[in-house]
Amino acid sequence: MAYTVAQKIIKAHLVKGEMITGLEIAIKIDQTLTQDSTGTMAYLQFEAMGINKVQTKKSVAYIDHNILQTGPENADDHLYIQTVAKKHGIYFSKPGNGICHQVHLERFGVPGGTLLGSDSHTPTGGGIGMIAIGAGGLDVAVAMGGGEYYITMPKIVKVELLGKLSPWVSAKDIILELLRRLTVKGGVNRIFEYAGEGIKTLSVPERATITNMGAELGATTSIFPSDEITYEFLSAQNRETDFVELKADAGAVYDETIQIDLCTIQPLAACPHSPDKVVLVSSLKDIKVDQVLIGSCTNSSYVDMMKVSKILKGKNIPEEVSLSIAPGSKQVLSMLSKNGGLSDMIDAGARILESACGPCIGMGQAPSTDAVSLRTFNRNFKGRSGTVSANVYIVSPEVAVASALTGYITDPREIGIAIKVDMPEKFTINDNLIISPAEDGTDIEIKRGPNIKPFPKAEKLKENVGGKVLTKLQDNITTDDIMPSNAKLLPFRSNIPYLAEFCLTPCDENFPAVAKENGGGIIIAGTNYGQGSSREHAALAPLYLGIKAVIAKSFARIHKANLINNAIIPLVFENTHDYEDIDVMDELIIEDAAEQIKRDVVIVRNITKGVKYKTLPEVTQREKEMLIYGGLINLMKNKKKDGE
Amino acid sequence: MAYTVAQKIIKAHLVKGEMITGLEIAIKIDQTLTQDSTGTMAYLQFEAMGINKVQTKKSVAYIDHNILQTGPENADDHLYIQTVAKKHGIYFSKPGNGICHQVHLERFGVPGGTLLGSDSHTPTGGGIGMIAIGAGGLDVAVAMGGGEYYITMPKIVKVELLGKLSPWVSAKDIILELLRRLTVKGGVNRIFEYAGEGIKTLSVPERATITNMGAELGATTSIFPSDEITYEFLSAQNRETDFVELKADAGAVYDETIQIDLCTIQPLAACPHSPDKVVLVSSLKDIKVDQVLIGSCTNSSYVDMMKVSKILKGKNIPEEVSLSIAPGSKQVLSMLSKNGGLSDMIDAGARILESACGPCIGMGQAPSTDAVSLRTFNRNFKGRSGTVSANVYIVSPEVAVASALTGYITDPREIGIAIKVDMPEKFTINDNLIISPAEDGTDIEIKRGPNIKPFPKAEKLKENVGGKVLTKLQDNITTDDIMPSNAKLLPFRSNIPYLAEFCLTPCDENFPAVAKENGGGIIIAGTNYGQGSSREHAALAPLYLGIKAVIAKSFARIHKANLINNAIIPLVFENTHDYEDIDVMDELIIEDAAEQIKRDVVIVRNITKGVKYKTLPEVTQREKEMLIYGGLINLMKNKKKDGE
Repeated sequence: MAYTVAQKIIKAHLVKGEMITGLEIAIKIDQTLTQDSTGTMAYLQFEAMGINKVQTKKSVAYIDHNILQTGPENADDHLYIQTVAKKHGIYFSKPGNGICHQVHLERFGVPGGTLLGSDSHTPTGGGIGMIAIGAGGLDVAVAMGGGEYYITMPKIVKVELLGKLSPWVSAKDIILELLRRLTVKGGVNRIFEYAGEGIKTLSVPERATITNMGAELGATTSIFPSDEITYEFLSAQNRETDFVELKADAGAVYDETIQIDLCTIQPLAACPHSPDKVVLVSSLKDIKVDQVLIGSCTNSSYVDMMKVSKILKGKNIPEEVSLSIAPGSKQVLSMLSKNGGLSDMIDAGARILESACGPCIGMGQAPSTDAVSLRTFNRNFKGRSGTVSANVYIVSPEVAVASALTGYITDPREIGIAIKVDMPEKFTINDNLIISPAEDGTDIEIKRGPNIKPFPKAEKLKENVGGKVLTKLQDNITTDDIMPSNAKLLPFRSNIPYLAEFCLTPCDENFPAVAKENGGGIIIAGTNYGQGSSREHAALAPLYLGIKAVIAKSFARIHKANLINNAIIPLVFENTHDYEDIDVMDELIIEDAAEQIKRDVVIVRNITKGVKYKTLPEVTQREKEMLIYGGLINLMKNKKKDGE
Repeated sequence: MAYTVAQKIIKAHLVKGEMITGLEIAIKIDQTLTQDSTGTMAYLQFEAMGINKVQTKKSVAYIDHNILQTGPENADDHLYIQTVAKKHGIYFSKPGNGICHQVHLERFGVPGGTLLGSDSHTPTGGGIGMIAIGAGGLDVAVAMGGGEYYITMPKIVKVELLGKLSPWVSAKDIILELLRRLTVKGGVNRIFEYAGEGIKTLSVPERATITNMGAELGATTSIFPSDEITYEFLSAQNRETDFVELKADAGAVYDETIQIDLCTIQPLAACPHSPDKVVLVSSLKDIKVDQVLIGSCTNSSYVDMMKVSKILKGKNIPEEVSLSIAPGSKQVLSMLSKNGGLSDMIDAGARILESACGPCIGMGQAPSTDAVSLRTFNRNFKGRSGTVSANVYIVSPEVAVASALTGYITDPREIGIAIKVDMPEKFTINDNLIISPAEDGTDIEIKRGPNIKPFPKAEKLKENVGGKVLTKLQDNITTDDIMPSNAKLLPFRSNIPYLAEFCLTPCDENFPAVAKENGGGIIIAGTNYGQGSSREHAALAPLYLGIKAVIAKSFARIHKANLINNAIIPLVFENTHDYEDIDVMDELIIEDAAEQIKRDVVIVRNITKGVKYKTLPEVTQREKEMLIYGGLINLMKNKKKDGE
């Protein structure tokens, strides 16, 4: 039989189920990654499983999120992760070594492998031919423990790239074009597999820009074949032995096909406040720019940085513009510092930020009130920058730097002849900020700072599940809304009781207080509930506040999995107009909950209004077990007891 | 008559008074500098004076404190400062251009001039032969407006440096030795003037390290002569025309003399939690180091950085140590990026931070709980790092980097032959992050973000001044107690109404509420009220809350001046036991206030208890006028009206 690249990798890792679209499958995970804002919780959960050493081929803990450190909390979390990693067989990438996805691509990613990461941009690894999926910390913890990872077998979408990009147009514009066509919901339950002659024109980091931001389509993941370009990248990283060739078989069958003629793409920008509000850059040309930020896991590779540097060389940023640049990894920074690229940036007037997520996650560089900020990042949700009134545009490095130089949003084709940067034949290899785990971790003492609190644990499902409707939310609620993540809250990622005080407050200021007063209850939401970041804290904080169920018009994939992992029941309205019928403080009840979930239809009774709603749990057999046993950890413990 | 260097400069700038130790004098200010955490308020006050263009030879507004920017407040403040500077004739140094004191030395400082800065480390300018003094923002605003600056004529202390430093011993150790001998109170009302053959062995940045940290002695300022070494520095900065020679006359008379034999100094460290707890580094050698930070206005010059870089070259930081380095200015960063120095730091595993104050003011890099942190900074007060339990040691760059490499506090003489770094013949000059003011500022629009609130303005003294006793405080209340300053509150330095909500809350949680309920009133305090940082906000917040007078057993000097500048009457109990007699909510009244203040005795009547207290205002003639006219700004306005 003929397979696509994604199918080949899934097939080689299939542990349970059949590779049929829409059915649940379980795959073996080769590699895991965590970052520090989700990592602390993932390792606490891993510890709770009582396993000595990770069972993966390679697990890496990165520190790239919370590196501002205005109190001891961040440094304490980092020390905890560093020691727990050393003890349990996990590589540790120190602060300053770079953004997890960039570093993982450089030093660890392996074509044909599976990667599970507690960060929604884990699909960056698809650029090097991995099935790389973002998941909650608990799923990653389970994978580290050797457990399989469950997903619904996604549709495989062939994205056929034809021709080649015009000068000044870049990989970022390809993914922006897809977002323009498909919107932020267009990728749900899909793997985007890139094919066509056009892929031969894209380097691994360019491919990674595309797979990275496939996350904004809501995709399960995105993937490129592994070919001679992949080999050259690995070889330049002194990792040619990690290469395997991977291409789709002739006659492989895709569920859907999209064609993109690269020649026709023009420089694009995602306008405030969504990555799919994509327009031609040329249509924005009179907009004055206050701030330009270049970096993030989407656009911080060596080639991205060198293009920026060469454009800046010998020029000056105008006085009204603030330009900051954050190279993606120590490798990139080191190379720029050696070849003069960094010097050209500094001399042009750029601020050089640490190799880390930084402003992409609101860690610094919040723009001024009402400012226009151009960013090479991946998300421009309202307020994510730290400034609610700011207008953030997502663009390519070329558009960013052209605009920084003119002071207005600028189509880079207007500023001259396009710069060409070659991939280096050899990258500078220096892994001295990556700490290897101990051979024998027995004597390693784990250091736990006072901010690291026990995480809330779910309980076995009760016969009747009910409570008051605590809040009623609109469509497209993000995990940023559910569990705000900003410079003030990020240090408390290992302290759920504290974080819970801010749960859903961007939508409903009184939610935490109301939840506490009523001893928990139920959340009502619109479509695409829980889009955005993979953060598990958006399930853990509601769990801590006693949320029993969320009834929505639809759910985003990762957040739904996080709810189930923590035994909060996700229910979808069969008739979306029932949403209108429900009011805050209505008393709802699900009788005989376990039986109803098993039967795939759950009747929710509104005691206040005396009516019933038909809802669908849309869960797999295994997820049913999780809801009934009280979440993933309890399920694992029970299965262990049962000798499975 | 024979004069010292300090006396020569003061004499040349003397506007009022006689140069007799202990008497009040007024001097003309040539240059001012502000940083962004004190600057916003200083420029609001300058605006309130209604002067179009600064009257100084040069005024510079630096952005170096609040550059983490996790909300719009910082960026809004920066934009306000940028536009107000452009309008009113002030140079603006953009974020990323470096630490005010380092940049001022490089690009603006002029031997023989006077510099008033709204930052306590302004005496850095003494390294280039300036009388450079730290002051409150209002004093700086007055100086920008052409007003004179009042001080008590300090004692002149000759610090005679003999011989030369041994290898691995540096300028930092000289000032640590002085702190060891004199303590943090040893410099009060003194100018330290350096002399002796030893000064010829010290470059301008090394001299500036010493004068910078003279602030920790409590000194008014410190100064070096201007000689061929000063000329070379200015020439390397393309500023030879700014040079004037300045040396003490033969037979100049000093109030005190200290001798330091440089040959005998060994590497020193200030132990937690005070810069004067100085011991030999060799006595600390078994202490494990968690974090090492190199930078700050004290030790971030080109030579400091290059020494660090050369020691790091080809080596690796051990995995348990976190090393971060912040070059002091864009000039330094640019030069390091060009000559390979930066690359050597990066390759050794150092994190490179922005050229700014950063962790020295608790902006980032807070260590983990109980951590040992070695810093090349100037202050190690408990909690200043952001981590109350951390143990912070103040050391030279040589000690810092040697310790970073070994993982233990290390006398650098143990790690090999000392590195020699020469001063560059030419520095890289690129002022593209310094914005010149408009020739004509009429059309410049000042941008005021929503966080920039009008500051409270004092009023002309009423005939009878009275109110309830709102709180009764103990001895040694600090300005940190009166107006807390931390990473959460620093963004609100231009928002007194917001800050006032935290006024005195560390001592009396309900103070702001009680003050508001009662429409203001009176504060009762013990001895040394208002010790610590010079921040003016500790007077502005009480002014906003309607505080009319503070009656204390004694006052700290700078805070008392700030109270008077803002027309809050500071009164000292003649009989300290009267303190015991007063209770919170007693109603006090000062009848015929102006007349009483003029007579130097103020009777305070306790209406509630029916008794009277004799108190002393202890103010100069000029200060009396300020209290009566309603503070310094109103005094200036009135004098203008009177044609003075």
